Amino acid sequence: MIKQGELVLLVGARGKRVMRRVELGNDIHGNDGILKMEDIMAAGYGSVVLSHKGKPFRVQRPSLHDLVKGVKRQTQVIYPKDIGYICMKLGVGNGSKIIEAGSGSGSLTLAMSWFAGEKGEIHTHEAREEFMKLARRNLDWAGVGKNVTLYNHNIENGFLVDDADALFLDVRDPWDYVKFIPGAVKPGAMIGFLVPTVDQVSSLLTELEKGPFDEVEVSELLVRNWKAVPDRLRPSDRMVAHTGFLIFARHQEGLDALEGHKYVGTRERKQEAARKERLAAAQEESAE
Amino acid sequence: MIKQGELVLLVGARGKRVMRRVELGNDIHGNDGILKMEDIMAAGYGSVVLSHKGKPFRVQRPSLHDLVKGVKRQTQVIYPKDIGYICMKLGVGNGSKIIEAGSGSGSLTLAMSWFAGEKGEIHTHEAREEFMKLARRNLDWAGVGKNVTLYNHNIENGFLVDDADALFLDVRDPWDYVKFIPGAVKPGAMIGFLVPTVDQVSSLLTELEKGPFDEVEVSELLVRNWKAVPDRLRPSDRMVAHTGFLIFARHQEGLDALEGHKYVGTRERKQEAARKERLAAAQEESAE
Amino acid sequence: MIKQGELVLLVGARGKRVMRRVELGNDIHGNDGILKMEDIMAAGYGSVVLSHKGKPFRVQRPSLHDLVKGVKRQTQVIYPKDIGYICMKLGVGNGSKIIEAGSGSGSLTLAMSWFAGEKGEIHTHEAREEFMKLARRNLDWAGVGKNVTLYNHNIENGFLVDDADALFLDVRDPWDYVKFIPGAVKPGAMIGFLVPTVDQVSSLLTELEKGPFDEVEVSELLVRNWKAVPDRLRPSDRMVAHTGFLIFARHQEGLDALEGHKYVGTRERKQEAARKERLAAAQEESAE
Amino acid sequence: MIKQGELVLLVGARGKRVMRRVELGNDIHGNDGILKMEDIMAAGYGSVVLSHKGKPFRVQRPSLHDLVKGVKRQTQVIYPKDIGYICMKLGVGNGSKIIEAGSGSGSLTLAMSWFAGEKGEIHTHEAREEFMKLARRNLDWAGVGKNVTLYNHNIENGFLVDDADALFLDVRDPWDYVKFIPGAVKPGAMIGFLVPTVDQVSSLLTELEKGPFDEVEVSELLVRNWKAVPDRLRPSDRMVAHTGFLIFARHQEGLDALEGHKYVGTRERKQEAARKERLAAAQEESAE
Repeated sequence: MIKQGELVLLVGARGKRVMRRVELGNDIHGNDGILKMEDIMAAGYGSVVLSHKGKPFRVQRPSLHDLVKGVKRQTQVIYPKDIGYICMKLGVGNGSKIIEAGSGSGSLTLAMSWFAGEKGEIHTHEAREEFMKLARRNLDWAGVGKNVTLYNHNIENGFLVDDADALFLDVRDPWDYVKFIPGAVKPGAMIGFLVPTVDQVSSLLTELEKGPFDEVEVSELLVRNWKAVPDRLRPSDRMVAHTGFLIFARHQEGLDALEGHKYVGTRERKQEAARKERLAAAQEESAE
Repeated sequence: MIKQGELVLLVGARGKRVMRRVELGNDIHGNDGILKMEDIMAAGYGSVVLSHKGKPFRVQRPSLHDLVKGVKRQTQVIYPKDIGYICMKLGVGNGSKIIEAGSGSGSLTLAMSWFAGEKGEIHTHEAREEFMKLARRNLDWAGVGKNVTLYNHNIENGFLVDDADALFLDVRDPWDYVKFIPGAVKPGAMIGFLVPTVDQVSSLLTELEKGPFDEVEVSELLVRNWKAVPDRLRPSDRMVAHTGFLIFARHQEGLDALEGHKYVGTRERKQEAARKERLAAAQEESAE
Repeated sequence: MIKQGELVLLVGARGKRVMRRVELGNDIHGNDGILKMEDIMAAGYGSVVLSHKGKPFRVQRPSLHDLVKGVKRQTQVIYPKDIGYICMKLGVGNGSKIIEAGSGSGSLTLAMSWFAGEKGEIHTHEAREEFMKLARRNLDWAGVGKNVTLYNHNIENGFLVDDADALFLDVRDPWDYVKFIPGAVKPGAMIGFLVPTVDQVSSLLTELEKGPFDEVEVSELLVRNWKAVPDRLRPSDRMVAHTGFLIFARHQEGLDALEGHKYVGTRERKQEAARKERLAAAQEESAE
Repeated sequence: MIKQGELVLLVGARGKRVMRRVELGNDIHGNDGILKMEDIMAAGYGSVVLSHKGKPFRVQRPSLHDLVKGVKRQTQVIYPKDIGYICMKLGVGNGSKIIEAGSGSGSLTLAMSWFAGEKGEIHTHEAREEFMKLARRNLDWAGVGKNVTLYNHNIENGFLVDDADALFLDVRDPWDYVKFIPGAVKPGAMIGFLVPTVDQVSSLLTELEKGPFDEVEVSELLVRNWKAVPDRLRPSDRMVAHTGFLIFARHQEGLDALEGHKYVGTRERKQEAARKERLAAAQEESAE
């Protein structure tokens, strides 16, 4: 019932969890014995298979949260708590066209790919080749990413895509790329940033103030877990106190600059030519 | 360029915001003068229109966040911070089939509709007719909700749908309905709850402990906004300190109960007949 | 310059810290070599001594915070963050007379002893003898506690002292002892409680509501540390998310019960006789 | 029983509160009628007096918390939550000698005066005369402050006192005065700072790193209040999210600079002469 190539989550007693791609012959060997791939495939989602030692494992379809948490990391990943809020604020939904840089380990890319659906387009830029490969591996592993285009590209001269519904930057010096945003997004698009330190927040705000942006918002999200014990209910002893600061803003068309024109008209795509050149150059590079 | 019936967000200088459905003749009258609907339609998204007093307003497509915040409320609504996390944890994405109760004002319904896309199905139950109507009005207003089915139905005898990928309850006594969940969701489905008080959390946990559920998690989300002033950067003076507790769990097939069966087989749909009866009864009621 | 019996804090390079009582002949042996007690005594506070390997250590007088953190623990201790707030709310100052139960490891007792000064009186009750001894050892070790009386006494029949300016309970079932509080404190006294779980908070509130108390307040204190790096300033990755809930209230004289008396007069000490009996009985027990 | 000049807190039904100094003839007129001073004096603490309309009020001695909250403000005051932690970290207790600048409205001064007791000495510097007068009024009003010396003095050339057990700065540019701290405190003294913005934290840390200080710590305190309703227990909807960042450090004697000396000896008081000059100059100024 389960096809080769699908990703399954096997959950044993006491919360033991293994995520693995279904591949005939590639049986799972562990302390609880051998789980045969053909058994898993025959069982189907929601059923239970037994190891050769008789230990039961439930076969599950991984949830988005499982996938995001299962991503292989060589970089600081974006946390689920932040991912949910980011996708909400950016409105990443069915058919959204999103620009991202850098891809990092691809955890946000994965979630945006999930939410954007078949008609969506996620365009993610990553300067370092090893991270781009890692992000691609993680997307492939998760079985999502058909709507994702990965560019091994340094955004120092701009993005390779434009007309995006939203844009997200998780890079060290986001203020250096703010100037490229108006040429990359639809008018009024939501944009977001994640930076770990307050001096980065200040530098970014200084740049955003130059416009054309408004509705600038800085926030941090804290998730406080509780011990799920009904008669001794209380918060957990320790918690994650910091992952990063989230900055959101909305691109705007510069209302202040208006002088008596009835309609400003649709935005001139003056940067489009430059973009096409960059894209052509990048494709040439990749081809070499 | 903008069609009749679309929802537009008009943003004036200094952050003044009006969300309005485009309807010829239904011009917008305000302190800054009259904004003509035909001007708005001709301008298109991203352009600027002037009121008859010459005040400029940018025409924007509302973001998901704008829509959620713009929902008319007669109930306590679910906050964006919680909505993002809920949709992430439940994995509400393209094609998801979700059960919800109650609908309340429909703010979570709206976001789930957005994320689930054209192939998704959101089935939301609301016992009180005035809230069901409110939720429907809010979905219509937001221009989403084609994938939403609203049931004016008290879930005291169960849900009207089954085989859901995920389920969310925002009701006063969620523990009373936990017994219906295994018959309503796919094996291994993620389920979620929102309750405002700790005694409700305790009662719910007590019920969930009876099974068949695992990975039970209780958490609260805090969003701390900062003043977006680069050279005097600091947290805002006050913040929302509480909206509700979020409880998540995963349906499981009762591994502990296993006794030597090789495969438990796909789940018996013993509750399906009962469901069909309930649905038929409910349709009859609605027809009267 | 430093006398035998004083407690010194020796701080080496890279934050190495040793707290030790000065005692001739009781030299300190460690990886950095031997620190001789006579050298420490001759050096005086604020000076530096060298180990026989030439490693420098600064000789310091421990701060209150050092003492509280240095307490030997066999119980969950009260954290400095909570101690500061408790002493502030209770107004533990010069000459205060305070009732406490239980003593636990004595960390709060130590701080209250410090703040109450020579004229203060801290009366602390501890049912378990091993904890009472531990608290005494910790007070002796810290060199404070002259104003502390420790009772190895179970408060199930009340406190051994009355007329207190304030009272603090850190016991498992504080609601069982609320009835003894009006007889133990001055009218209008501040009282406080620490409990770790929300069901304990509920039980305590239910009891306090019966009176005679007002200004009831429930709170939690969170300390969020930051990484002290000027150019990469950010919160620490993790934090203590929970120690306990603090409940404060004020004893009141039952204004609601008033019926036309001009002055209610000073409080009748009806419970004083009972107290004296209990104290006599306890002293007899201790004498055996 | 209550003497003229004492400060009393009158608590009426439903939490109505009036704090007033006892002065014959200075009766309290309010919506609930007239409370006569002679009645209050005769009643004594803990008793109840009736207004001429028959409304009962309980006569109470204000707690430290009442006093701190009752301070008249023309400046941003330091919050009780921060005051408790500051006094704990600095170890402000019986007999402590503390240096403070600026005095502001005197709320921290008041609490330190309370904790330091009769033998304590609080030396507080305030550049602006109107604030110094305000602080003095607040201390007088609270009936504490015998151990406080207020200097109407700008600390741009240093403090007027030395040999302090601890020092606290609540000024706009604390980094400008760090250089005066080693000459003002005992070796190993705890020092503290409060600043509202992160750029101030960074500037201060940069200065502290130049030494001679260690154990540098940056933190924020959050108090989250709960609704004290036993059967619907939950956090309050909103909370204070920010007052300021607290920075603590310990003065150290420069272990790193040590070069083979057996004992560095007690600290040279090289800055003492300068201090005496400054004090003399300041006294002259005041005399004019």
